[in-house]
Amino acid sequence: MLTKILKSMLFLLFVHALPSVAYAKQDDISFQQLKDKYYQDHPGKGKFGDLWEPIPIQKYWNPKDFYKPPTTVTGEVTREQCVVCHQSVTPGAFHAWQNSTHANLDKIRNMPNAKDPRFYKKAKLAEVEQQLAKQGLLKEGEQLKDVGCIDCHGSVGAKSIQHDKDLVMPDRAQCGTCHTTEFAEAESEKEQEWPQGQWSKGHPSHAMDWKANVETAIWAGMAEREIAQGCDMCHYQQNKCDGCHTRHTFSAAEARQPEACSTCHNGVDHNEWENYLLSKHGTVYLTQGKQKWNFEVPLKDAITKGGYTAPTCQTCHFEFEGEYSHNLVRKVRWAFNPTPAIADNLSHPWFEDRKEAWQQTCSNCHSPSFAESYLTAADKGTIAGLKVEQEAKKVVEALYNDGLLPGQKTNRPQPPKPEKDAAGGFFQLFWAKGNNPSHVERVYADMWEHDVIKLYKGLFHANPGGFTYTEGWSELMRDYAIIMDENTKLREAAGKTAQNGESPTRAALREFKDAVASRYVLGSLLVAAGIVVIRSRKR
Amino acid sequence: MLTKILKSMLFLLFVHALPSVAYAKQDDISFQQLKDKYYQDHPGKGKFGDLWEPIPIQKYWNPKDFYKPPTTVTGEVTREQCVVCHQSVTPGAFHAWQNSTHANLDKIRNMPNAKDPRFYKKAKLAEVEQQLAKQGLLKEGEQLKDVGCIDCHGSVGAKSIQHDKDLVMPDRAQCGTCHTTEFAEAESEKEQEWPQGQWSKGHPSHAMDWKANVETAIWAGMAEREIAQGCDMCHYQQNKCDGCHTRHTFSAAEARQPEACSTCHNGVDHNEWENYLLSKHGTVYLTQGKQKWNFEVPLKDAITKGGYTAPTCQTCHFEFEGEYSHNLVRKVRWAFNPTPAIADNLSHPWFEDRKEAWQQTCSNCHSPSFAESYLTAADKGTIAGLKVEQEAKKVVEALYNDGLLPGQKTNRPQPPKPEKDAAGGFFQLFWAKGNNPSHVERVYADMWEHDVIKLYKGLFHANPGGFTYTEGWSELMRDYAIIMDENTKLREAAGKTAQNGESPTRAALREFKDAVASRYVLGSLLVAAGIVVIRSRKR
Amino acid sequence: MLTKILKSMLFLLFVHALPSVAYAKQDDISFQQLKDKYYQDHPGKGKFGDLWEPIPIQKYWNPKDFYKPPTTVTGEVTREQCVVCHQSVTPGAFHAWQNSTHANLDKIRNMPNAKDPRFYKKAKLAEVEQQLAKQGLLKEGEQLKDVGCIDCHGSVGAKSIQHDKDLVMPDRAQCGTCHTTEFAEAESEKEQEWPQGQWSKGHPSHAMDWKANVETAIWAGMAEREIAQGCDMCHYQQNKCDGCHTRHTFSAAEARQPEACSTCHNGVDHNEWENYLLSKHGTVYLTQGKQKWNFEVPLKDAITKGGYTAPTCQTCHFEFEGEYSHNLVRKVRWAFNPTPAIADNLSHPWFEDRKEAWQQTCSNCHSPSFAESYLTAADKGTIAGLKVEQEAKKVVEALYNDGLLPGQKTNRPQPPKPEKDAAGGFFQLFWAKGNNPSHVERVYADMWEHDVIKLYKGLFHANPGGFTYTEGWSELMRDYAIIMDENTKLREAAGKTAQNGESPTRAALREFKDAVASRYVLGSLLVAAGIVVIRSRKR
Repeated sequence: MLTKILKSMLFLLFVHALPSVAYAKQDDISFQQLKDKYYQDHPGKGKFGDLWEPIPIQKYWNPKDFYKPPTTVTGEVTREQCVVCHQSVTPGAFHAWQNSTHANLDKIRNMPNAKDPRFYKKAKLAEVEQQLAKQGLLKEGEQLKDVGCIDCHGSVGAKSIQHDKDLVMPDRAQCGTCHTTEFAEAESEKEQEWPQGQWSKGHPSHAMDWKANVETAIWAGMAEREIAQGCDMCHYQQNKCDGCHTRHTFSAAEARQPEACSTCHNGVDHNEWENYLLSKHGTVYLTQGKQKWNFEVPLKDAITKGGYTAPTCQTCHFEFEGEYSHNLVRKVRWAFNPTPAIADNLSHPWFEDRKEAWQQTCSNCHSPSFAESYLTAADKGTIAGLKVEQEAKKVVEALYNDGLLPGQKTNRPQPPKPEKDAAGGFFQLFWAKGNNPSHVERVYADMWEHDVIKLYKGLFHANPGGFTYTEGWSELMRDYAIIMDENTKLREAAGKTAQNGESPTRAALREFKDAVASRYVLGSLLVAAGIVVIRSRKR
Repeated sequence: MLTKILKSMLFLLFVHALPSVAYAKQDDISFQQLKDKYYQDHPGKGKFGDLWEPIPIQKYWNPKDFYKPPTTVTGEVTREQCVVCHQSVTPGAFHAWQNSTHANLDKIRNMPNAKDPRFYKKAKLAEVEQQLAKQGLLKEGEQLKDVGCIDCHGSVGAKSIQHDKDLVMPDRAQCGTCHTTEFAEAESEKEQEWPQGQWSKGHPSHAMDWKANVETAIWAGMAEREIAQGCDMCHYQQNKCDGCHTRHTFSAAEARQPEACSTCHNGVDHNEWENYLLSKHGTVYLTQGKQKWNFEVPLKDAITKGGYTAPTCQTCHFEFEGEYSHNLVRKVRWAFNPTPAIADNLSHPWFEDRKEAWQQTCSNCHSPSFAESYLTAADKGTIAGLKVEQEAKKVVEALYNDGLLPGQKTNRPQPPKPEKDAAGGFFQLFWAKGNNPSHVERVYADMWEHDVIKLYKGLFHANPGGFTYTEGWSELMRDYAIIMDENTKLREAAGKTAQNGESPTRAALREFKDAVASRYVLGSLLVAAGIVVIRSRKR
Repeated sequence: MLTKILKSMLFLLFVHALPSVAYAKQDDISFQQLKDKYYQDHPGKGKFGDLWEPIPIQKYWNPKDFYKPPTTVTGEVTREQCVVCHQSVTPGAFHAWQNSTHANLDKIRNMPNAKDPRFYKKAKLAEVEQQLAKQGLLKEGEQLKDVGCIDCHGSVGAKSIQHDKDLVMPDRAQCGTCHTTEFAEAESEKEQEWPQGQWSKGHPSHAMDWKANVETAIWAGMAEREIAQGCDMCHYQQNKCDGCHTRHTFSAAEARQPEACSTCHNGVDHNEWENYLLSKHGTVYLTQGKQKWNFEVPLKDAITKGGYTAPTCQTCHFEFEGEYSHNLVRKVRWAFNPTPAIADNLSHPWFEDRKEAWQQTCSNCHSPSFAESYLTAADKGTIAGLKVEQEAKKVVEALYNDGLLPGQKTNRPQPPKPEKDAAGGFFQLFWAKGNNPSHVERVYADMWEHDVIKLYKGLFHANPGGFTYTEGWSELMRDYAIIMDENTKLREAAGKTAQNGESPTRAALREFKDAVASRYVLGSLLVAAGIVVIRSRKR
């Protein structure tokens, strides 16, 4: 323990003395290389691309592949004209920009007071200018005046563009032209590799969320493209930076507040937002943070200079061994969805090391003993839920394999290509036709895709109701009960014997024999008796 | 496009030069006329009034018809006595009032600084005084000192009232005595007419929400009046103004914040509040708006002077073609509830013009192309959901018409008058007895009244999880699966043939014949064979 | 009424003149007596303690019984060393403490301005010092310098501790050493007695919530201890004070904000938080309170000095007859869960007096007539829901008693000890195996434990959607429909006769006879006729 403390103290000294150590990496690789790799990795429409066509709104979710400038405004427009005209046509966007850092670089450059929480932006601006000089976009020693419409929607430093030809919607690489460090950090998520192949390389991550989106079979196969594009509205982080730094303020302070994550990280299959708010972390944020914390300070100074007295999404998930970066997957363990392939390997060093890294994170405020105890409880609680789900899975799959689901033999259409039929499959959350899915399958799909995940998220975000009585465990119990109930009924209806592993056909045959043996034999006896009576009377 | 931009610029100039153009209308019609029409349009207890009696609390939801002063305080009380006594008996109400604009008119009148966001109230106060002079309630040139208890709970300018005889709970007209412009704006919602009669004149709107309430059959018929009055708690905007401007601050700044709408606009059948919060609009409001925006400025100056960088409920729904008013229905299209009668007529100019008006609203911040693409996707997504709901509707109605619902023939009580029985009717959300409704009907009622509406609200409020995986589409899929499952089971139980449109009686008859033909023929043969054996032995 | 007003005015005078009248009680009983009684009342592991073992994290939920210092840090550490080391190892905890009142007692002591909202803390500090002097922990007239790590995690005033031997996690008594008044107030909840024994003495309350927790059969019996400890995460108020005053700020201002209650008071079985937020009380809090109210003032000055224009959880639930205290059960009526035993006794003086006390609370802002009308409506609405639930209860219990639940005779495992099987029991929310519970039982368990409670909480917190259409009544209708549907199906499947109170065995027997009488007689006749034909042909 004492060594640990000493190590921590040394570590803190180290971090404070060399705050930019993590950014040094950017020099190893040029912006051009980064950008080339970014486009090379980008899936475009993805492997199912021939099955769907983009609808108009999707040009904003994936501008690289789908955006074309409108032809309603033609001709050359200058840097100044962009601003003047958009002050009138999109005043909201204009005013947001006008009050942003982008429009007020001199305020940063001339900031006199080192105690201003935004003082760090001075060095950041110098870094950006250096970066642009390296790319030949600024002369050595030249200063950026401002970042206006044309720099992002045309090209950095452009004097004018052809509105109907050159207009672009900025992608990650466009933002990365200036913000190369952050671009490099974010793209480094693609390097993540799972020790037992639980997820394929780079997944799950913001850096590959568009690929994950378009290569999901039911997403590609759904006829309702306007519903499907709802998935894109979150799964576009691979394409753009405005998911967290919203237009046209692009505020770092905004992106440091938990609400920045809430649009995507809420709801039935990843309710991190609700869990955070209802944890004690959330209470402190809502009662103290909103009024008193300074979100202008960089994350590394959150506690010391920002006055944070509780964590935010950002302070935990951007951090790894005391360093903050746009790579959010460095401590990922259960990732998006608890599975046996993870549960069975938690003692592997890959997972153990990450648990250790989490303990270090929690130890910003809690004792290592508290952190370890809590994380272990959360692991075991997650595994307990997984066990229930796996038991239900077998029951539902057996019903499917035995052909006992309602309408399974008479009215079970195939899901749309490239999707394939399966019992309780993911596609059944987004597609239904005839008796596919049956009710019991949908309950099971909710169980593995919603209940177990909410259990896990509730546990790890320390929201007690989120994993005991409101979400998570209690929901697992309810869905388990529905599944077992239905299993009993369907099997009783099909003949109880099918429970013994007999095929339904054999069971049906035997049931028939049983019926004959019981009812008809009795019937026959009665009839025979009747005949005897009739005959005896006849005589 | 260029013409559009020029038009927009001219329009903005126009709006800024003549900010009160929209209010000019008030002069066309006197307060007395407005008031007379208001009472004339008011339904009182409504057309089912003989079926229910108000419970005590309802005197506060509809004071016009139900309020009577308490007899516990008798005698004449002066303007000053009201204040002195209520400082003690209801200190919370007193202090709220004491810090309100009503109690501090001189602060408004003597405001020196035109840059104060509340400076516009100076002109508003003058307008109110003019209005009161017109009504003979102030002498020409006389100034209002303050607005105290007696002005609203007695009559404007009264010196004293008889507490047990004259005390009133203010209704819209009472507020309108001073706030005539706002009263006129709000009442103008009644003029709304739907091109194909999708809703009756003036509906749905705040201005007629009490009528909608009391003329809903199940509301009038329910025995549980204490539950029914819960509907009144929102459906009283036709009666009173404190739904948005809460007692006793009556703050415009409060009413401009999204939370002002949240008490009524949340939950299973109109979750606008949740959708807003979880959209990126909501993120910006929560991360930037709460701290930095100035809600004291009027809506028309929200972007330019208020610092808004995202919309609120109010900036979108009070706006129409650049003008702001208390008439919130001028851009209504899908209204409360998507129906085929709307879906089938979206290309009608009435709907097209309103879509255009929405595009103008969105274009405050977004490009027209973005706005058009998004609105079209939202329309089509809504229609996709409607299609699923309509398919389910047919299935449930067929079960009802075929008499196949559980207990339908043995234990289906009629709903209370004036309600009439129907498959999956609205009343089934609020009333249940015996086997009415059956489970499958309730699922369908949830589908059309909750799932489809949430889908639509999620789409139009740009909350991705609100229409894809948490609410909306995924719920529709689940409810569809339950309905199809149940349909298959009930029809199989009743004999599969009923699916072919045969009446259940015929089906039952044929099923009997089939049974005889299959089981009994076999039985007979077995018996006959037995007899043969018996007889042959006998011989 | 006039007398009431006079009484109120006198009362207010009285309260303002003698703000500390309620605290006088503390002198009657010494800290030592309080502490002794606290430990004497504490259940430790409770009556089922032999059935479960604590897991590591539980040492933080009940430190008194389970906490042992870590052995990783050994040796003696001084008051100063604690602080220096923890500044490095747990910087978040350190900085929270550093900015807290505990670390800045001199700022309180030297506060010059009586208008500072925290001025009242000056007297509080003197009271604490007096208390410590009484216990011999300070010399007469000696001042506390600060409250550091060692005072709470060792003992008040200690110079040094053995880290691996003396370290404690503070419990209620440890906080009570200084905060004796608050400790006494909180402990006085144990004196609550219900007039008809609806709850056992002292229940439900924060002061006995750990006992309630560990003596709940299913909590003690559950195999999944990591899930069960989720209950502890709220049910630890009996053990510790940091549930409301979170570590390491221990802020009174934080604990006065509604979010302080939200971690525990949310969700399916006690959604007070959601109801508050969605009521008009919540709107005012969110739109005005967050920005303008001063939470540093004590609750008794909330309206007059704090600027509150709406209630918080604290202003209503800490108040009783105008006085504020940490005893929150003095106005409890329906408590946690509406039951017939409460509904049937509301006219008893115990309940009537408390209703009167509530009216006084509401009358801070509302008229007594409004308060009375609303509270009566809420009572009656709650009773209406209870009636529906009780009807459903009979149906489910009859199914259980008749042995008709799916799998009841073939696959219904007993719940874990000490739990006992029951239809729709509480345990079925947290445990499921085989066909226990059946689906219909779980629906019923949700009904009584969730729907009715949400109805009641929605009514009393004035959230209209919370008791009409989203939660409460509409959910009761849905669950009732599911239960009646299933009842009809199960009884039809078992032979309709079982509905007449006949035992299933008798019913089955008669069903068999009926079948023989109907089908087989007909079959026999047909066969006989066939035989006649055959025979006649043979002749």
